[in-house]
Amino acid sequence: MKNWILFISTAVIVFLLAILAANIFERRSEAKYSYQPKVKLEGIEPRDSIWGLNYPRQYQSYRKTQDTTFKSMFGTSGHKDVLASEPDLVILWAGYGFSKDYNAPKGHAWAIEDIHKTLRVGSPMVPGEGPQPSTCWTCKSTDVPRLMSEMGVTEYYSQKFSDMGTQAINPIGCADCHNPETMQLTITRPALIEAFEAMGKDINKASHQEMRSLVCAQCHVEYYFDKTRPGQEKAAYLTFPWKNGMEVENVEAYYDKIEFSDFTHALSKTPMVKAQHPDYEIYQMGVHAKRGVSCADCHMPFQTEGGQKFTNHQIGSPLANIENSCFVCHREKVQDLITDVYDRQRKIKEGTNAVQRQIAMAHIEAAKALELGATEVQMKGIQQKIRHAQWRWDYSVASHGAAFHAPLETSRIVSSATAIIQEARIELTRLLATLGYNQPVPMPDFTSKEALQAYIGLDIPKEKAAKVTFMDQVIPQWLKEGKAREAQKPAKIVSSR
Amino acid sequence: MKNWILFISTAVIVFLLAILAANIFERRSEAKYSYQPKVKLEGIEPRDSIWGLNYPRQYQSYRKTQDTTFKSMFGTSGHKDVLASEPDLVILWAGYGFSKDYNAPKGHAWAIEDIHKTLRVGSPMVPGEGPQPSTCWTCKSTDVPRLMSEMGVTEYYSQKFSDMGTQAINPIGCADCHNPETMQLTITRPALIEAFEAMGKDINKASHQEMRSLVCAQCHVEYYFDKTRPGQEKAAYLTFPWKNGMEVENVEAYYDKIEFSDFTHALSKTPMVKAQHPDYEIYQMGVHAKRGVSCADCHMPFQTEGGQKFTNHQIGSPLANIENSCFVCHREKVQDLITDVYDRQRKIKEGTNAVQRQIAMAHIEAAKALELGATEVQMKGIQQKIRHAQWRWDYSVASHGAAFHAPLETSRIVSSATAIIQEARIELTRLLATLGYNQPVPMPDFTSKEALQAYIGLDIPKEKAAKVTFMDQVIPQWLKEGKAREAQKPAKIVSSR
Repeated sequence: MKNWILFISTAVIVFLLAILAANIFERRSEAKYSYQPKVKLEGIEPRDSIWGLNYPRQYQSYRKTQDTTFKSMFGTSGHKDVLASEPDLVILWAGYGFSKDYNAPKGHAWAIEDIHKTLRVGSPMVPGEGPQPSTCWTCKSTDVPRLMSEMGVTEYYSQKFSDMGTQAINPIGCADCHNPETMQLTITRPALIEAFEAMGKDINKASHQEMRSLVCAQCHVEYYFDKTRPGQEKAAYLTFPWKNGMEVENVEAYYDKIEFSDFTHALSKTPMVKAQHPDYEIYQMGVHAKRGVSCADCHMPFQTEGGQKFTNHQIGSPLANIENSCFVCHREKVQDLITDVYDRQRKIKEGTNAVQRQIAMAHIEAAKALELGATEVQMKGIQQKIRHAQWRWDYSVASHGAAFHAPLETSRIVSSATAIIQEARIELTRLLATLGYNQPVPMPDFTSKEALQAYIGLDIPKEKAAKVTFMDQVIPQWLKEGKAREAQKPAKIVSSR
Repeated sequence: MKNWILFISTAVIVFLLAILAANIFERRSEAKYSYQPKVKLEGIEPRDSIWGLNYPRQYQSYRKTQDTTFKSMFGTSGHKDVLASEPDLVILWAGYGFSKDYNAPKGHAWAIEDIHKTLRVGSPMVPGEGPQPSTCWTCKSTDVPRLMSEMGVTEYYSQKFSDMGTQAINPIGCADCHNPETMQLTITRPALIEAFEAMGKDINKASHQEMRSLVCAQCHVEYYFDKTRPGQEKAAYLTFPWKNGMEVENVEAYYDKIEFSDFTHALSKTPMVKAQHPDYEIYQMGVHAKRGVSCADCHMPFQTEGGQKFTNHQIGSPLANIENSCFVCHREKVQDLITDVYDRQRKIKEGTNAVQRQIAMAHIEAAKALELGATEVQMKGIQQKIRHAQWRWDYSVASHGAAFHAPLETSRIVSSATAIIQEARIELTRLLATLGYNQPVPMPDFTSKEALQAYIGLDIPKEKAAKVTFMDQVIPQWLKEGKAREAQKPAKIVSSR
């Protein structure tokens, strides 16, 4: 009897173990099946749709960067016109493309469509026309590594924006960050490699965790177009100004030393530097970077689907996905975490709003001084202060998420910009009195983008009309030619098991 | 044989268990012994040495607040002369006692000795003399709750500082925060209770964890002396200006509404508000408070000694005891944590240093305008801006540890002060030009405390000589009388077990 019980129990246990084993095998084969390559990726493949055949979860989540429904406290979802909500920026950028058109950041999937549409690149009807160099494509398209490989880097930087319209048709995607054979993270843009070299560092020594930020740092950085490289003067060579360090003062000193300016201000005649988006630089000055958290840890958190763990490629605000991002370390209520972020943003926004108005006033006061006959000598020190104050302000606002990534550093920069513009405006007041004008300078209506654009002499209706023609006639042609070229290179299907 | 082994093993195990039990009993009796009262605490007992007979660990650790060896990055250990290291403060406080003498914070144990020594309270040779009211003792001595109980609160606030010299001889101590019978945390200063009432709150509803901050908030707050209470006009009634909220703008609006000023500035003739030390207010705006961390959690961490867990009463910088304070939540390298704190302090110090110089210059520029005949009407708006800028600067620096407790809020305040003083100085520049003075106003040597004290007309050598006489002749008498009074009330020894 006793033996029978033992026998039956054993049989039952063995049966259950077999079911468990079968389940494990099934999941393992499921995993294998998921990563079974469907196509062979050859050379630089700019089309995400082809990578997506091998990596459907990553591809499908990446496609969601088209989604513009998430709204931050400032309502910065897809289509926000920043100049309309903060019109003083029109004055700050008078004489530069940003005074025409500047929108809130949108997902990677929009990169090509949005660069076509912005007034900043003009409306070039034929190749060779227009205000911008081909360098403007560098962070917009997976076609860029392909073009650099085909043409050579310097030759690529030496074209006009309009020369590459039929070539750059795929927005930011897989090929920008991944090696097609090993899927390892990889640096495809030479500017980052060169910036590391300039600092005496070797980017090949970066760890995988560092690479999870460095692939982003290919584009999410401060940069400028160097047109003075010996023997490469035709090129607008993409360069990161990191040689002396990444703090706002280091980069300011770098630009001062090489006497670089992006534009001469239309009102104050100041040689200005436009900050781009020093996201990587400012992120490094915050506590998350100090604790070893990478960009991807928050912006591309791990996720599980159908038994598969994968990196969610819907890059965007972690606030849209707190449970998968913040919660890994912070066990707090969702609403508390959101409030913490918005508090930081609100406190810094207060300072940046104040200082941008003060800088706008300084430009207008300087214009008045020039109108009254101020000399170059009288203006020089004032213009240098305006240049520095606006550079610092811009460094603090142009970076996506600076107010969260390194709130105190950002606030410190704002304080310093406020102190510098103070000195400029006191000197301006004194200079104006010397020139016989001892009263406040009349200011335009700071609440209307259109009024300010007219004030600085822009003809926006004309530019918009040209853009409509460009979108109607040029863009369909660019895309048609690009697609026809790609049709010559179909995906290589791998034979199934 | 088998049974013998079982028997011997059992005997051994029982023997070991008995030893363990004995050890546990011993520790329990040790614990009992520690908390066996030696003396009966009756009424308000100002002498820590008597409380210490019952609570030796707390007492002994509290006595270590005499220790001044810890130095922060700014070298702010016990004896630092802040006016010597930041002389522009002399200008900011011209017309007020702080321009004479201002030292870095020291431990609680020094409260009485240091208030005797400071030039701010003058050198009153007889009762009734001197510049300060008795209210100045309120946060310095455990004798204050006793005096309030004996005299009545309003009567206590209606004396001169010199009237209470023989009464207030025990520095901040046990009786300030503890109920002598239950040892529960308790509020002994009416100002905090009244401030809660003014906000429509009941402090009796505070939780124990809240009390671990609120006992500190009896003193570590912004306050002023209200001399306008109906029927109590003789009193300098200690009041916390919290009715509209604790943010710097709330308190500024409060003071503006009641047209309060601590002093009229000797140079700019501005009605000024001196910020005290809004530690509790600013701490509440930081992440530690938001996560429920109390003052005591970091400044009085739990510790174990001889099997006893107790609260370490050596109140001071948590940086001197990171292992017991920060480590409870933050598992980082000690040096990383220290660097994090110093980074925050350095970034804010940069802004406060800049703005304090700008405010000092504004005072001097305003004095020049007055000298040249500026009218009250011309000065009013400018003075209001100087008042607000300096108030905000002061709120950000006067708080012990604001740069760590709420770095971003502190930096926000600094930015706002910088923006306000900018407007004041631009208006001043324009006003000076109107008065025929269109050039920078000559500035004194901002690097010398002595030069600046002479510049604002202080006779410090004379005040120091008076202080020497006061310390020689008055203080020994005050202490002698006080001790004699206390000798009448010996400790009540409780009969031993």
